[in-house]
Amino acid sequence: MTFDPASLKYDANGLIPAIAQDDATGDVLMMAWMNADAVARTLSTGQVTYWSRSRQAFWAKGETSGHVQRLVEMRVDCDRDCLLLRVTQEGPACHTNRRSCFYTAIRNGDEVELMRPIA
Amino acid sequence: MTFDPASLKYDANGLIPAIAQDDATGDVLMMAWMNADAVARTLSTGQVTYWSRSRQAFWAKGETSGHVQRLVEMRVDCDRDCLLLRVTQEGPACHTNRRSCFYTAIRNGDEVELMRPIA
Repeated sequence: MTFDPASLKYDANGLIPAIAQDDATGDVLMMAWMNADAVARTLSTGQVTYWSRSRQAFWAKGETSGHVQRLVEMRVDCDRDCLLLRVTQEGPACHTNRRSCFYTAIRNGDEVELMRPIA
Repeated sequence: MTFDPASLKYDANGLIPAIAQDDATGDVLMMAWMNADAVARTLSTGQVTYWSRSRQAFWAKGETSGHVQRLVEMRVDCDRDCLLLRVTQEGPACHTNRRSCFYTAIRNGDEVELMRPIA
């Protein structure tokens, strides 16, 4: 079946959550949002492009930082309201310069930092 | 630092997205939503409990199906507006009886089914 970005279920703001997962290690790197055009751009260019809710603009990941995400494979969930992006991540995915945005764990009721920024 | 569920950033409906990842294989299993009480319940019981947007009720994963998710570790992202749940998944995570909800890949513009329901 041919894939059509319009066939996905977007929220009231026309957005769908997209989870980026490192294709080599399986680590979950980040979660951000896409609109239908960002989905289409990501598929056509092979470079992950989100929709920035704060800037209300396309966000070609790594455009300024160089920390690009190359799309290995896009997957759709059963409800068609969430995307999983298998990616090759250049450098850190997080704006704090850590490899993953999920660097804080809850252990015994406390917050524990799992990784440090890349030097 | 002591973790307080109220310190997370919830959307206009009081919800935060939670990504469930198989702790053993690294596979991303599903994405669902939690409110602050669901976060607290999940941490206190060790059994993943979401908030069902369709039923507007707590959704203790596997309560009726037996396909429970035991929490191994909860992680918070840099913006505190997304959760990553490392879990031990009993049986299929997806309501279609597949191991993961992300069983459809986009390849060369077509939708490809990656896994079949568990018999």
